[in-house]
Amino acid sequence: MTAPTESAAGSTAEGAEPQHPLHVTNELFRVAFRHHPAGVAIVTAADPEPVGITASSVASVSADPPALSFSVSGGHSAGRVAAADTVVVHLMDAAHIDTVKAYATPGTERFADGTWEPAATGEPVLKDAPWALRCRVIERVPVGSSILVAAEVLEILRGEHSEPMVYHNRAFHRLTETSLIQSRDEV
Amino acid sequence: MTAPTESAAGSTAEGAEPQHPLHVTNELFRVAFRHHPAGVAIVTAADPEPVGITASSVASVSADPPALSFSVSGGHSAGRVAAADTVVVHLMDAAHIDTVKAYATPGTERFADGTWEPAATGEPVLKDAPWALRCRVIERVPVGSSILVAAEVLEILRGEHSEPMVYHNRAFHRLTETSLIQSRDEV
Repeated sequence: MTAPTESAAGSTAEGAEPQHPLHVTNELFRVAFRHHPAGVAIVTAADPEPVGITASSVASVSADPPALSFSVSGGHSAGRVAAADTVVVHLMDAAHIDTVKAYATPGTERFADGTWEPAATGEPVLKDAPWALRCRVIERVPVGSSILVAAEVLEILRGEHSEPMVYHNRAFHRLTETSLIQSRDEV
Repeated sequence: MTAPTESAAGSTAEGAEPQHPLHVTNELFRVAFRHHPAGVAIVTAADPEPVGITASSVASVSADPPALSFSVSGGHSAGRVAAADTVVVHLMDAAHIDTVKAYATPGTERFADGTWEPAATGEPVLKDAPWALRCRVIERVPVGSSILVAAEVLEILRGEHSEPMVYHNRAFHRLTETSLIQSRDEV
């Protein structure tokens, strides 16, 4: 390959033709994804006690049936979310940065009084979330110590919206007219 | 549920307690994810001819081993990418908005001369991509007419970087100091 390259062990001279695949380290992989922007979600479940985690891996998979994916790794709460038959995926925005940080930080109080209520089916629903999607897990794919989850959306609740929020390089950004590059006609 | 709710068929009166799950339509699901920001990637493969698509579903799954996920749906190119044993996932930024749009639009020329070259292993590598991650597909999960793909990263190439780019509500945004809300200590 003659594209600009970098291995974890050091740089390959530009124009050189590596005879073997570059070494990939966990750290270089983390750097790459640290620079890949993502929306932010909170995924909750009933265990039966409320449990929840912040996830930056939520993505739409299919519109028919409506289905999404996310992945979880490490941590007590993550394991409990991954094991649940049903979850609620909350798509969060800039008004909820403190909530998102709380659910991302081990040991912090997550289900404060008045911020959530159980769905009729038992899962905790964050009352202020712009979107809450109650889902049935349809597939769990173990990948290393992580689990990739596919889930079908059963129910959608819509709340108040503020500015969209993005996570990038360990910081949060908001999307506004000022950040707009150009619009596009279709997905 | 007493959180603000909306079904596709109409609104549920606030404070009402629905006896049955709200109906979820494909359209309401699309609206929800249209408002969930995402980074933008181009996924290529050798079929053996070069094939590639724009994807806003790329997410990190595991750092050990380094693995990611993405999903593809519909379309000739998407099917060929989903069937490949190995792919190259290019994480794109604001300098490459035109390339990203070309790979998202059916019928446009995608592999223009001089913009790519084959890896030693055959897959097309976009030479200007900030990051190119050559991956081996380890799992394909059919979900409706879509396929959720998990892939292990074999090799990472790093190129020139510009401003991070985000796709949201059918438009592209750039992340800058101006869009920053606040930084955060840890993921």
